[in-house]
Amino acid sequence: MMVESEWLQRQIDNLAAISEAPAPVVTRVLFSDADLQGRAFVRKLCQEAGLSMREDAVGNSFARWAGSEPQLPPVATGSHIDAIPNAGRYDGVVGVLGALEAIRALKRSGFQPRRAIELIIFTAEEPTRFGLGCLGSRLLAGSLSSENVAALRDPDGKTLADWLAKTDFPPLPEDEGAGSTTSKSPAALLVRSIRLPRDCYAAFVELHIEQGPLLEKETIPIGIVERIAAPSTLRVQLHGVGGHAGAVLMPERHDALLAGAEIALAVEQAALATGSPDTVATTGVFRIEPGAVNSVPCRAWLEIDLRDTQLAPRDMALKRIEGAIPEICQRRGIDYQVERLNVDSPAMCDPALVNTAAEVCQELGLTVKKMISRAYHDSLFMAQVCPATMIFIPCRAGVSHRPDEYSSPAQIQTGVEVLAHTLARLAR
Amino acid sequence: MMVESEWLQRQIDNLAAISEAPAPVVTRVLFSDADLQGRAFVRKLCQEAGLSMREDAVGNSFARWAGSEPQLPPVATGSHIDAIPNAGRYDGVVGVLGALEAIRALKRSGFQPRRAIELIIFTAEEPTRFGLGCLGSRLLAGSLSSENVAALRDPDGKTLADWLAKTDFPPLPEDEGAGSTTSKSPAALLVRSIRLPRDCYAAFVELHIEQGPLLEKETIPIGIVERIAAPSTLRVQLHGVGGHAGAVLMPERHDALLAGAEIALAVEQAALATGSPDTVATTGVFRIEPGAVNSVPCRAWLEIDLRDTQLAPRDMALKRIEGAIPEICQRRGIDYQVERLNVDSPAMCDPALVNTAAEVCQELGLTVKKMISRAYHDSLFMAQVCPATMIFIPCRAGVSHRPDEYSSPAQIQTGVEVLAHTLARLAR
Repeated sequence: MMVESEWLQRQIDNLAAISEAPAPVVTRVLFSDADLQGRAFVRKLCQEAGLSMREDAVGNSFARWAGSEPQLPPVATGSHIDAIPNAGRYDGVVGVLGALEAIRALKRSGFQPRRAIELIIFTAEEPTRFGLGCLGSRLLAGSLSSENVAALRDPDGKTLADWLAKTDFPPLPEDEGAGSTTSKSPAALLVRSIRLPRDCYAAFVELHIEQGPLLEKETIPIGIVERIAAPSTLRVQLHGVGGHAGAVLMPERHDALLAGAEIALAVEQAALATGSPDTVATTGVFRIEPGAVNSVPCRAWLEIDLRDTQLAPRDMALKRIEGAIPEICQRRGIDYQVERLNVDSPAMCDPALVNTAAEVCQELGLTVKKMISRAYHDSLFMAQVCPATMIFIPCRAGVSHRPDEYSSPAQIQTGVEVLAHTLARLAR
Repeated sequence: MMVESEWLQRQIDNLAAISEAPAPVVTRVLFSDADLQGRAFVRKLCQEAGLSMREDAVGNSFARWAGSEPQLPPVATGSHIDAIPNAGRYDGVVGVLGALEAIRALKRSGFQPRRAIELIIFTAEEPTRFGLGCLGSRLLAGSLSSENVAALRDPDGKTLADWLAKTDFPPLPEDEGAGSTTSKSPAALLVRSIRLPRDCYAAFVELHIEQGPLLEKETIPIGIVERIAAPSTLRVQLHGVGGHAGAVLMPERHDALLAGAEIALAVEQAALATGSPDTVATTGVFRIEPGAVNSVPCRAWLEIDLRDTQLAPRDMALKRIEGAIPEICQRRGIDYQVERLNVDSPAMCDPALVNTAAEVCQELGLTVKKMISRAYHDSLFMAQVCPATMIFIPCRAGVSHRPDEYSSPAQIQTGVEVLAHTLARLAR
């Protein structure tokens, strides 16, 4: 089986050029023109490879290579192509274009799958527009309620339905159920129409860059993921009192920025205080209003990301952060609102699937490291649907979510080969 | 002399509707369409009032009512119409449209000035685009060097010259001097062409809302300003290391947001530590990159405003802030750059002029409070050109730089009457 590394690199380059910001930056925020153009680009490549395409109502895309025994659950692979502002070209993309090349290589080799092989391109793995990551895979796993969906708001107050109305994704199906009145809401229909039945796939395997330094440090070409960290996201809105920066004396102030600054530092302290080296907490979004040098900030908007590979220290830090916010805000006379955008549990990958991927590596003569994923991925939710694991490849200095994110063509090629052989084993 | 309060209120409403944001918010950032349209609106009103208009190369506008003795230096009044994001309708505007109505009322009354009376609409009193307030009046006072001007950058890296090229302000005059090569730079020509000769005006009087609570609290209709606080502005740029919020462990982080948060809190502490109740310090601008919830902030951009009515405590706080930044950044492994955008001295108003305005109030039967201005104004720089003072009127709860900024029609009318009588006295 021959992987066409040059073709793959060319398509990675082509997709990187579809960006809201000039090269080397890649920015493809959910539902931006770049996101929609990127989807069209990948769809065309999949069609050229002879795969049949379908989309669901939230834009998750499924590219299918039919198997000889259509009654068997297919084998799935895939990842995402959306990208946070100021990102690089490999996160997610390697798992989409690399999986497509794995399928193309299998086709060229004459392989005939018994099970269908499906490449899934998930909507909004990145939490850009609604502050919620893995939107598409959460819906596939049925882990969002219609209330969760109806409550989604972007910074301008727009809903998911507002944004979907602007896309050409398939419309919601008519309500065919006998359900109650609430279940006929657009959000309930969306949730029902997207959710996958359990075990509709035989397995899900996601190829991804590590986004951490371990494989590179140990010069190991492949990691197989056994567990995915438990993420949690909070959104904090602070309402203070604005005014002229010259005229409002210090004791009279209720400065939303300063409350936000204390909260961001408390978030850091909460992560450090768990005693677990794996607890990480980040205030990644921090916006203030009005944002003029001579005006006391009256509002602040924070989004906080908190994770651990284990639930107990993650929840300890979460509790500590949620305790610090009222204390800080009451002391400063700031109104506050805290929302838990998501509080997810860690995922265990399927041990048999992990072993299958590891055996493939052994056969290919590749050393392999079984590892945890600190970043979370669509696999976290696909693991609720079917046996799932991830194949990691090294990336330079562990850097990700930056324009200088990099995995070499050879590293990517090795990942694609492992993925192709693993898919072949699972589908044969 | 009759002030047409209804006409004035109508024009204040009309100008408020020229805004980048919907009512009740007023936003007219320097060189935005709203700023340029606002200028055109005021220019038209001045022309309808029979005033002759001229502009200088940075867009300062001069509306002149000729006097009977053209050899005498004119009397000047005026203020600004630009507005920070999310501002109200009175800051600056009362001193422009109110002054225009004062001139119109004097005209209607049959008054014939010996000295010309000039209404000046200053460019960029607010430090919106370049982070530097009083850009127009600084240039009139000759308090910016050509190096200062050439170094001005907006957040996108654009220069003042870049922006001026898009306006229809008069072009720079040809270099008529015998100066060195550097003095022929566009910035040097700009500086030379705008600077006013000392004592080119007999006096400058600015009508303005107080932007503080004192007049309202003491139910005094008019304040006369004896001194204007000493402002200082710093810009801080922080460069940390970004990365994936799940993958970069806490001890490995160089989070630019957290350094910025510590700096903002140090700014507050520096103001509290001077012992002077008049020291105020504000981090009014705080932006981070990339600003995604799952990405460690790699950059932060802060703008800090620091003031006191006296120089010593202001400089004590400045020193403390400038000392805290390196300590914080070195501890966190953050590269930093600190610029002093301005460090100005307090202005003394002209005692004779203050007394003239106070006598006018006495004649009109108005109680008056001699006071300091905590906010700074174009008068701070006009005081370097000629005798200057300000007439303050109350504003509700001292609120300014907010959409709910408010002075009543009656309060404004009283201010316009005092200004008109003061201008008449000075110009007769």
